[in-house]
Amino acid sequence: MLSGREAMAANLFPTTRLEAFSDGVLAVIITIMVLEMKVPHEDGIAGLLTLAPILFLYLLSFTFIGIYWCNHHYLIHRIEQVDHRVLYANLGFLFSASLVPFFTAYVIEKKSDSFSVALYAASMIFAGFTFLLLRIAVGRLLRKTGELECEDVATQRKHYASLALYLVAIPLAQFHPYLALGAITLVTVIWILPTVRTVPRSDLGQHS
Amino acid sequence: MLSGREAMAANLFPTTRLEAFSDGVLAVIITIMVLEMKVPHEDGIAGLLTLAPILFLYLLSFTFIGIYWCNHHYLIHRIEQVDHRVLYANLGFLFSASLVPFFTAYVIEKKSDSFSVALYAASMIFAGFTFLLLRIAVGRLLRKTGELECEDVATQRKHYASLALYLVAIPLAQFHPYLALGAITLVTVIWILPTVRTVPRSDLGQHS
Amino acid sequence: MLSGREAMAANLFPTTRLEAFSDGVLAVIITIMVLEMKVPHEDGIAGLLTLAPILFLYLLSFTFIGIYWCNHHYLIHRIEQVDHRVLYANLGFLFSASLVPFFTAYVIEKKSDSFSVALYAASMIFAGFTFLLLRIAVGRLLRKTGELECEDVATQRKHYASLALYLVAIPLAQFHPYLALGAITLVTVIWILPTVRTVPRSDLGQHS
Amino acid sequence: MLSGREAMAANLFPTTRLEAFSDGVLAVIITIMVLEMKVPHEDGIAGLLTLAPILFLYLLSFTFIGIYWCNHHYLIHRIEQVDHRVLYANLGFLFSASLVPFFTAYVIEKKSDSFSVALYAASMIFAGFTFLLLRIAVGRLLRKTGELECEDVATQRKHYASLALYLVAIPLAQFHPYLALGAITLVTVIWILPTVRTVPRSDLGQHS
Repeated sequence: MLSGREAMAANLFPTTRLEAFSDGVLAVIITIMVLEMKVPHEDGIAGLLTLAPILFLYLLSFTFIGIYWCNHHYLIHRIEQVDHRVLYANLGFLFSASLVPFFTAYVIEKKSDSFSVALYAASMIFAGFTFLLLRIAVGRLLRKTGELECEDVATQRKHYASLALYLVAIPLAQFHPYLALGAITLVTVIWILPTVRTVPRSDLGQHS
Repeated sequence: MLSGREAMAANLFPTTRLEAFSDGVLAVIITIMVLEMKVPHEDGIAGLLTLAPILFLYLLSFTFIGIYWCNHHYLIHRIEQVDHRVLYANLGFLFSASLVPFFTAYVIEKKSDSFSVALYAASMIFAGFTFLLLRIAVGRLLRKTGELECEDVATQRKHYASLALYLVAIPLAQFHPYLALGAITLVTVIWILPTVRTVPRSDLGQHS
Repeated sequence: MLSGREAMAANLFPTTRLEAFSDGVLAVIITIMVLEMKVPHEDGIAGLLTLAPILFLYLLSFTFIGIYWCNHHYLIHRIEQVDHRVLYANLGFLFSASLVPFFTAYVIEKKSDSFSVALYAASMIFAGFTFLLLRIAVGRLLRKTGELECEDVATQRKHYASLALYLVAIPLAQFHPYLALGAITLVTVIWILPTVRTVPRSDLGQHS
Repeated sequence: MLSGREAMAANLFPTTRLEAFSDGVLAVIITIMVLEMKVPHEDGIAGLLTLAPILFLYLLSFTFIGIYWCNHHYLIHRIEQVDHRVLYANLGFLFSASLVPFFTAYVIEKKSDSFSVALYAASMIFAGFTFLLLRIAVGRLLRKTGELECEDVATQRKHYASLALYLVAIPLAQFHPYLALGAITLVTVIWILPTVRTVPRSDLGQHS
């Protein structure tokens, strides 16, 4: 870790504002999606039922952005300073994330047709790609300031599995759009489930 | 409380970003509701009067989210670090809160009919349920780090009273939607009123 | 100032989250107004000219919220902890501020007719009233923690002058809506101008 | 740097809330632009192709605001306290930035006609002008607290080059709107490219 004066000279900045800005952008992204949902014309339970697929897609995209927020949190927590490269890589990631509400609206309006679901999967791959660039920029900075890069293997495996499932989802959407959405849903389940399971284990290891 | 290094090993993170992200999401939720309000076609006082029920519903939902923000503030203030479980439980709570603007628009568009008011009450129960999960996740973390869980009894009573009133509001909405909205309004009054009364008392006890 | 443990017992919380949440809400309020502006149908300079009154109203409301943000900043900066009363008074202020985009849209849609301009002035008085409640809640807290309340006289005079101008604007709007908008504009000028003049003076006093 | 008590007397405030509010406003600005994008009526790849110019304009405006956020970050990082002048200059900058989504929508709706592209370039010059006022206000504060103003020459050159390109873009838009958009795009490239190149060099200088 460089001292304050050295940090200034090397164009390093504390992570606080990058975190605050990213939190703000992701908070807006995750909530404006709700504006896409329109109150149905039918009254009563019939109207609510027409909403079911839209609510499901909203939940899916909300979880997608939510998981990325968690991963962003973990990633930036590992550094104390950012350079220009990380700032711009972060902007790239936020740009790709900001497209998710739009492509969610796309799937909703096109009623989950093959093309819109493939596009939705592609936008998720794009987000994954820009997040990978951010991880590389952070890793570069960690090596520069002399710290070991030690992202755990389980997390890396999850990134690969996600990419594989999204890549499968695109051709799958041509034949079975709903199966493709199932593959995308599976990715979010992968990210949430094992996390819950891992915590008690590491606690056991620590307290025994 | 674990030290910084132990916290890292146990996958604990400071609460700052969880707070910042939640503040951002709740800030967007509480203000996008105002976008649902449309300027009436009638000119003058007649137009304003057609707005009255909409303004009332907006005030009700604003207060609902505002109270949850206060409770979220109190809850997270009791911990200094969060684990994965708290992060994901928090995302669940934010998801349920993000549905409130939509179901507020639902009640407005359906002109407070039985079904929409029941749905509105149900969305509030859902928010209460996800907040309960968050409280459980926080309580679990407090016990793990060796701190006593000491949520005051008055607050717990308010949570039970709120749930009871919402559960009453759903069947009530079938017969008297406005009475059901009255029950929902009563919940927000319960949360605001006693708080104001409690503060001077605890001060008296402390300074005497 | 109470110690950390005493603060907990007296239900006091640091100001950080109140500030973060208020910043978030005011940031959303100040920017969603831009969504009210619609691209005109006419091409070229003619289209832009039809926008002029809308751009002016947007600037006016933006400045109004911006000044309140500054005043909120100054006010909360004087305390280090908040109690329930301040939290709820703050929510009341944010509610009144959140109505400003709506009543701005009202004036725009009704083309600055008498009623909409009077309503706009009334919404500004409402914001002033809830901000007064917040100032009272903060003053109460300052006295409780043994600190002197020392809001400068110039600021108090500005608050009174603003109220007087808004109260004049409401009846004035019945006859001359544009003059009433002029009075409202004068308020924002009062808040910005003297501030700029005061700073060098206090510096002179300090360095000489 | 003045002490805390002196800072209070000179009406200086820590930069934290200015940063938080600016982050919030810029986060909302950068993401509400995505709401301007409408799902096309055509199905399949044909629909996506009609989106291409809109996606490009969104990327351009996103990058524009993103670069300003970075520059704002660098600028405010150089001071530790703000006075009234900086607060109000900052509000002016945020106002000009908040117009960018509107003028982006303008270009999209007018299908990049001469007038809308010239207006778009003018709104960028306006943002540059208010940012210049903010830089002057910050420079004034730095001299007052006895610190040297030392903005690097490369950054100043970029500001001048940007202004020149925008000024060229306005008349150019009368004849070739797309060339004018090219000039605007070139500005964003100028800001991103050299930054990436500069970082390793300064590191080389430091570690050797």
